[in-house]
Amino acid sequence: MAFPDSIAVHDAFILLCSFFALCLKFGFAFVEAGKTDPKNVSNVIFKNVADTFVTLLAFFLHGYAFAFGEHNAVIGTQFFLTLNKTNMVNFFFNYVRCAVATTLALGAANERTEPIGYLISAYVFSGIIYPLACHWVWDQQGIFSPTSTSYPSQDYAGSGVIFLLGGAAAAVSLRVIGSRAGRWSPHFKRTEHSQPMVVLGGCLQMLGFLGLVIGTHPRVLDADEGLLLGLGTVNLLHAATSGGLYGLMIQRIDKNYYDLDSMLSGAIAGMVAVCAGVDTYMPGVAVMCGATGSLLFIGFRRFLCAVKLDDPLNIVSGYLIPGAWGLMLAGLFSDHGALGGHIQVLGNNCIVALVLFFWAVAIMYPLLSILMCFGVLRVPRFMEKQGIDKIRHTLRHPHGTRKSLN
Amino acid sequence: MAFPDSIAVHDAFILLCSFFALCLKFGFAFVEAGKTDPKNVSNVIFKNVADTFVTLLAFFLHGYAFAFGEHNAVIGTQFFLTLNKTNMVNFFFNYVRCAVATTLALGAANERTEPIGYLISAYVFSGIIYPLACHWVWDQQGIFSPTSTSYPSQDYAGSGVIFLLGGAAAAVSLRVIGSRAGRWSPHFKRTEHSQPMVVLGGCLQMLGFLGLVIGTHPRVLDADEGLLLGLGTVNLLHAATSGGLYGLMIQRIDKNYYDLDSMLSGAIAGMVAVCAGVDTYMPGVAVMCGATGSLLFIGFRRFLCAVKLDDPLNIVSGYLIPGAWGLMLAGLFSDHGALGGHIQVLGNNCIVALVLFFWAVAIMYPLLSILMCFGVLRVPRFMEKQGIDKIRHTLRHPHGTRKSLN
Amino acid sequence: MAFPDSIAVHDAFILLCSFFALCLKFGFAFVEAGKTDPKNVSNVIFKNVADTFVTLLAFFLHGYAFAFGEHNAVIGTQFFLTLNKTNMVNFFFNYVRCAVATTLALGAANERTEPIGYLISAYVFSGIIYPLACHWVWDQQGIFSPTSTSYPSQDYAGSGVIFLLGGAAAAVSLRVIGSRAGRWSPHFKRTEHSQPMVVLGGCLQMLGFLGLVIGTHPRVLDADEGLLLGLGTVNLLHAATSGGLYGLMIQRIDKNYYDLDSMLSGAIAGMVAVCAGVDTYMPGVAVMCGATGSLLFIGFRRFLCAVKLDDPLNIVSGYLIPGAWGLMLAGLFSDHGALGGHIQVLGNNCIVALVLFFWAVAIMYPLLSILMCFGVLRVPRFMEKQGIDKIRHTLRHPHGTRKSLN
Repeated sequence: MAFPDSIAVHDAFILLCSFFALCLKFGFAFVEAGKTDPKNVSNVIFKNVADTFVTLLAFFLHGYAFAFGEHNAVIGTQFFLTLNKTNMVNFFFNYVRCAVATTLALGAANERTEPIGYLISAYVFSGIIYPLACHWVWDQQGIFSPTSTSYPSQDYAGSGVIFLLGGAAAAVSLRVIGSRAGRWSPHFKRTEHSQPMVVLGGCLQMLGFLGLVIGTHPRVLDADEGLLLGLGTVNLLHAATSGGLYGLMIQRIDKNYYDLDSMLSGAIAGMVAVCAGVDTYMPGVAVMCGATGSLLFIGFRRFLCAVKLDDPLNIVSGYLIPGAWGLMLAGLFSDHGALGGHIQVLGNNCIVALVLFFWAVAIMYPLLSILMCFGVLRVPRFMEKQGIDKIRHTLRHPHGTRKSLN
Repeated sequence: MAFPDSIAVHDAFILLCSFFALCLKFGFAFVEAGKTDPKNVSNVIFKNVADTFVTLLAFFLHGYAFAFGEHNAVIGTQFFLTLNKTNMVNFFFNYVRCAVATTLALGAANERTEPIGYLISAYVFSGIIYPLACHWVWDQQGIFSPTSTSYPSQDYAGSGVIFLLGGAAAAVSLRVIGSRAGRWSPHFKRTEHSQPMVVLGGCLQMLGFLGLVIGTHPRVLDADEGLLLGLGTVNLLHAATSGGLYGLMIQRIDKNYYDLDSMLSGAIAGMVAVCAGVDTYMPGVAVMCGATGSLLFIGFRRFLCAVKLDDPLNIVSGYLIPGAWGLMLAGLFSDHGALGGHIQVLGNNCIVALVLFFWAVAIMYPLLSILMCFGVLRVPRFMEKQGIDKIRHTLRHPHGTRKSLN
Repeated sequence: MAFPDSIAVHDAFILLCSFFALCLKFGFAFVEAGKTDPKNVSNVIFKNVADTFVTLLAFFLHGYAFAFGEHNAVIGTQFFLTLNKTNMVNFFFNYVRCAVATTLALGAANERTEPIGYLISAYVFSGIIYPLACHWVWDQQGIFSPTSTSYPSQDYAGSGVIFLLGGAAAAVSLRVIGSRAGRWSPHFKRTEHSQPMVVLGGCLQMLGFLGLVIGTHPRVLDADEGLLLGLGTVNLLHAATSGGLYGLMIQRIDKNYYDLDSMLSGAIAGMVAVCAGVDTYMPGVAVMCGATGSLLFIGFRRFLCAVKLDDPLNIVSGYLIPGAWGLMLAGLFSDHGALGGHIQVLGNNCIVALVLFFWAVAIMYPLLSILMCFGVLRVPRFMEKQGIDKIRHTLRHPHGTRKSLN
């Protein structure tokens, strides 16, 4: 009787998880397209497909080197443009995580962004902003790595590095690019392309979160680590459930109807909030993470409306805030956190949240401001009225006639 | 050279299979949404997303305890609200199966059900009806478990426990809730939201059946069990093929056109019928299961029309009947059945079919009747005319304008 | 501590990869449906579902026997209608590859093909044309197998056997069936059913390619083979990226807009071109494969327009040409090719390309011509005008009213 090789089986498993995690990125495209005005659907989908490729370019050229190369606690400088045969699977999994963060970061200001400005900022985010954050928190040399002697922190599956960071960049983009034309007029009507498409995206995102969580541990199939698989899955599901049901109930009590969107987004917010400590929480804590994440989401959605930040996809309220909250929860409740006897982790997790936020702002704000000055970030007013599809993609309607290419 | 841990690899494999099996649940949402009138699409999708969460709640609180806790041959009483680390993967896989059955059971009476009545009955089905059935047939203590000394039966992948049980509950709901308004008027026209969406759902369902079947055996990666993987997959595919082609041919001969829906539903019926013995059938038997399942489906679809049971999604004809038929086939043709030398299994399987049917009826009939009395199960007539989306979900059309939340 | 069985784990892994690869077949259905006039959408989807089943029939009855049975270098004659327990997983993986090739081969002439003619030619392609090609190149007895002593060639993941062969059959079908009515009139307007559906298909295809590539090696989880997993994935991703970005840039420079379709099809063409040597290329070579595949696709798309070959789904330009090119690249750049010291492999790969092309033509041309003569291949002109859905499938519109069956 022969046995399979441990390293190969690990690689195979992480690859399969990555394929599911890729569904998180793809799912976001359909959520976004489903929530968009029909006149901009092709534009939205175009951006989501194009950044899949641009992210790979940036992450392969220098992103992975900055993130996982050896050098010092702040930046890595190995593996520029080259991988060795043993880290390719690790590269792929991290590329998927980077692509998820990038989609979040840049997708927020949809229905008003120029394709070229979008692609440039996607390149910078995935090649510089995300990789350095990744190095600090997840590389073993990093200043905030769990095994660091200086500032050990705890972010297992990306509440901070993926969702808080992406959400922070999204907040900046909303601030710099500004609201959609007429958004705050009392006559504003929102037109959604398709509810079923939003739910298709949501289902893909749920599969994606599952893949993302269980593929994170690099040696999960060794004898004592396998318990993580079930725990991570069940915790994630608990957080999604409590997040979804709270989102549903609040809207039902408050507005007297069943809001599919609040339920789905609440479930996502719950999963975002649980990610940071999903490997060690008791199920009860996961339920609490999901519930509070969902409540924060709904509260901040109203708050952002009140302060007139035009966030049609709820990136700030649904990813940035629950992500930051998730870091605190992990600092407190995870085995590696304050209640597990590691008092300083709670403080470090708060520092990480602030550092990630300001890091994203520090790069994105000047970058987007410059792009705005050059006029390549926001489409002209007449194009926004007519829809971006017609002029930038020569489509009048996602379901319609177009100039034939062949 | 190191080897991976057997338990961890099994867990990883079963989790990945569960993710595919989850596609069976998601796929059903799209089949249902695609076959629905546009005025009810959001309602249909809402219910499918919400029951994902409600099912988890019920299954975690007490469902799993009833199903897989230790106590006696009828009910388990362990693991209320708690899991231990070693059964979490088992919990997740069984949650997915429960979610599939629940979706079937409650989804049948679409376009006329109140959300709140739907959610209450989904809770009862997934927390009480399904778990007990599961305990009887699949738990090793269960009265009908394959290793039981009293009434050993054989239902490998759920023809009975998932599909017959869900279908029986669906039949009750159709009976109690009644037909759609105007369904039997000669002027009735069916409006389907989208054929491609139905097929998207069908593709997801096929992936889901594959995951469901090959993830069932708890020790499939041990030396002598691995052969099951290929056999299960090939049997399932054979049943789908013969079911689909028979569905197509009959409709072609009879009506002179190619009916996509009969083909797809025939394939599903074929897969339902093969599930009970998919681990041991010869491929020829699988072909026969698929063909007879599909024929029964088409026959009963007409019969139900004749007796005026309004089943727009064909749950009774496509799941209940083939599921019951599958139990008999397994009692006869599987290695653990009559032709494999276990004469009494055939009889026991028939008993199981009856018990599951009457168990579902015994709980669902009073429950739904009470909900009808309180007026929380069927929407008022005017709402059914206007569409449920408009009033319960504030949407006029799945592709259209809505009140903006942000 | 126990270890899992090597054979079972391999089988499990290849099955999971096959499920992803099946997404390549399903994805094609949505790409095709999305690019089709609404009046033919159900017809297109019908064909894609039906050939899933017809392919299995043909491949099980004699296809697998021709492909992987033992006999001589040209044809196999074992396993007719029977499999043994150890080759079922292999059967399933090869069935999926066959289904992908068949979908390509027959899907090209959409919006004008009779269902019955489609199904007959799908049967012949998947039961005779593909299996023999498969035997020649991939069976260890085959005349062009990598280990053959006569004409060793190199086609790791199917640039030739799947994509060139399917594309060649598609070219024949376009030639014999002819252009759509009015295609070359100056007033021709193309109506696309749905862009998001095309992208959904594209995402599924990308997952499918990943599954196809990493599931190819039969012993990938043994100690020294596991490195292939990462290499194959990264190479595929590089090819997709460079193919996609080149497709985007060329269209941007030339036509001044961002063409989603050129980007997606360019990425697919890149992946097709890299398949033949994806197991050994350096990443730089994969980038080059993707780029040249994409350029060839765009060039040939124009050329085919100029010579009035009506290929609305770009099968010839996007699969046949990059597939042939991929074979040459593998003959030159792969470790098993000319630059790896195996000079004759380059010549043999060119021979394989020609043999596969003429083999497809030699069977498909007479077959389709005969079907044309009998009038069962192309729909009558009036039906093409009205749309095939209305008459052959009794649907007026994919989103609309239909005669109710239940």
